[in-house]
Amino acid sequence: MRINRKRLEESMERLGRIGETPKGGLTRLALTDEDRRGRDLLVSWMREAGLAVTVDQMGNIFGRRAGSEALPPVMMGSHADSVPTGGKYDGQLGVLCALEAIRSLDDHGVRTRHPVAMAIFTNEEGARFQPAMIGSGVMAGKIALEDAYNARDRDGLRLGDELERIGYLGAEPCIPRPFRAYLELHIEQGPILEEEQLPIGIVEGIVAISWSRVTFNGVQDHAGPTPMRIRHDALVAAAEVVRGVREIATRMGGEFVSTVGRLDLTPNIPNAIPGRVALSVDLRDPDDARLDRALPLLDALVREAAEREGLRGELEHYWRVPRTPFDPGVVGAVEAAATSLGCGHRRMLSGAGHDAQYMAAICPTGMVFVPSRAGRSHCEEEFTAMDDVEHGANVLFLACASLAG
Amino acid sequence: MRINRKRLEESMERLGRIGETPKGGLTRLALTDEDRRGRDLLVSWMREAGLAVTVDQMGNIFGRRAGSEALPPVMMGSHADSVPTGGKYDGQLGVLCALEAIRSLDDHGVRTRHPVAMAIFTNEEGARFQPAMIGSGVMAGKIALEDAYNARDRDGLRLGDELERIGYLGAEPCIPRPFRAYLELHIEQGPILEEEQLPIGIVEGIVAISWSRVTFNGVQDHAGPTPMRIRHDALVAAAEVVRGVREIATRMGGEFVSTVGRLDLTPNIPNAIPGRVALSVDLRDPDDARLDRALPLLDALVREAAEREGLRGELEHYWRVPRTPFDPGVVGAVEAAATSLGCGHRRMLSGAGHDAQYMAAICPTGMVFVPSRAGRSHCEEEFTAMDDVEHGANVLFLACASLAG
Repeated sequence: MRINRKRLEESMERLGRIGETPKGGLTRLALTDEDRRGRDLLVSWMREAGLAVTVDQMGNIFGRRAGSEALPPVMMGSHADSVPTGGKYDGQLGVLCALEAIRSLDDHGVRTRHPVAMAIFTNEEGARFQPAMIGSGVMAGKIALEDAYNARDRDGLRLGDELERIGYLGAEPCIPRPFRAYLELHIEQGPILEEEQLPIGIVEGIVAISWSRVTFNGVQDHAGPTPMRIRHDALVAAAEVVRGVREIATRMGGEFVSTVGRLDLTPNIPNAIPGRVALSVDLRDPDDARLDRALPLLDALVREAAEREGLRGELEHYWRVPRTPFDPGVVGAVEAAATSLGCGHRRMLSGAGHDAQYMAAICPTGMVFVPSRAGRSHCEEEFTAMDDVEHGANVLFLACASLAG
Repeated sequence: MRINRKRLEESMERLGRIGETPKGGLTRLALTDEDRRGRDLLVSWMREAGLAVTVDQMGNIFGRRAGSEALPPVMMGSHADSVPTGGKYDGQLGVLCALEAIRSLDDHGVRTRHPVAMAIFTNEEGARFQPAMIGSGVMAGKIALEDAYNARDRDGLRLGDELERIGYLGAEPCIPRPFRAYLELHIEQGPILEEEQLPIGIVEGIVAISWSRVTFNGVQDHAGPTPMRIRHDALVAAAEVVRGVREIATRMGGEFVSTVGRLDLTPNIPNAIPGRVALSVDLRDPDDARLDRALPLLDALVREAAEREGLRGELEHYWRVPRTPFDPGVVGAVEAAATSLGCGHRRMLSGAGHDAQYMAAICPTGMVFVPSRAGRSHCEEEFTAMDDVEHGANVLFLACASLAG
């Protein structure tokens, strides 16, 4: 019993054209017109596959295939939004493999005891609205619905208004429900599977993640007649933090990673001393206690940079997801599927956050990883070979069928 | 013989409302709709004052009051564009004091031998289109007209197209012409006049200015699963340059100033390692030879930052204006006007570039400075007391009348 590789590949190509960049990557930010077109296409395919489609208050889309008994469903899913100039695998692949698994159940006339369902979660990336994984976060009861609605993008547009604008503000309550299991296929986004030449990663859990926001308010002034002695340059302080955040990772060692990915200047012109800089700090470690030890280093860094430049620094640790272990039963089902297919595989931890991280709070959860070429993701060069995609989709399909009974 | 302070103040208030920010500053970027509305108002006032108004191919606006003889005119002027969240004095004040001086010649029935004219130059700030001082630069033959037309803003809009769109693409050739003198009143934008409690600066010249563009191309990747050991983070390299540019000023000492004012990241989201960063470097010194010695320090800084992070760095020194001495005769006329008014004054050098810098290449040139509160400019807090404005306008008026004979 296998999935249909050709059909899956065709779906990947068709969905990948919506928001495609000139270099073959993808820009399909959450709740934009491109996202709406991608959602519309997916919903039409879900309906063609005979699924009962519903949309909840967060715009999360669900499609359900009936089971033979009145039991909680096995849910598969991921997200369909991308980062700017991202790739065609992050998110989209998990959604399409879920759909392909359901189509394959029909192909093989499989009747499951549990219903089988698929989910497309809203704004997983956190590229347009912060924090990330907001659709699954509300569903898991970890983010308040009102806070999610009030998240604003760079242009000040509200998430709630944008949901309504693109026609995906659903009526179904966005609340925890009983699920037999949640399964998510995703690209690894790191180099390990490729380095070890394995097609499948059995994900045992997700690292702890902390997001912080740093703001420096200096003195905006003219870059020419303002002597160095009276300057309070917000960018000079921010540069200290960028370097210091890198040094925190060196100091922590192990699998600790730290990144300043976003930095916004005001007024951002060549001949004005930057008056205000806001930047993001992303810290991750498999061990919550180690992440806890890193945060005071960041606090000290911001304080010292502000003091040195004689300006005001603010630091807010605004999002934290603890280390998430997945369910041993679901992880075992994924492993058994890989073994039965004869696919090389290894157990591993995810360095990236996924909707599975929030789903794990409300039901038994597991994930399937497929390799990323050169470990690259969140870029146009993101790529996974079709052979690996096929292996991953089959693992998802068989694990789902097994869990659904 | 004095200018009319009340009329000048009313004009400042009316023009200052176009593009006014909520905090009382000004955002009137070159060739935007706000700039067009500001230009329209100024042109209407120039026509009311009986001036013959013309517009050249760069959108520079000229207004001419006839003289009694067929001689080259004495030109006064400045610019009407601002930086984003800038102030209501930088540029606008020089244009309005020029207009006020001409209105005052009429009030007092003064007939001059030389015609007296005023100019409003296009895109002095360089905030929307680079380089700065582009309207006067083309007029002085220092920037090619086609290069100016092809300058593009952040959204890719062409300067030439925007000139046409706002209706200020004139027919008059933008070429050097004979002028008796060029006089520009401007705020100091530095702290010296305030520190020394003097209302008037007699500007002897402008420092040498160099603008460079640095681009780092690293590897855009996911901030989670990408181990520190394989990262090539463009922002980490950029942060080294920001710090190093500050250190260049420390090393050079004296009146050397250095600024990174603009920094743009791609993709600029919390959970992606920045793949590309572009930043501006602004270096200034009264002495061209010292500026020449600083540029190789910047070259080395960019090279070393790129090597350390294992990525590609590009550096382009794309704009240079040499130290500009003003004409001793015109500087003397400004000083004589200040002396005759009994105003405290001192000779000084401008740390900011002005249209006067290019005008000095084609005619005898001088400038009048008035104090900036706390030395601040290119910010909403920019302020000059009305008493100082009045002194400055009178110096401009008397110097102009004296030079026009």
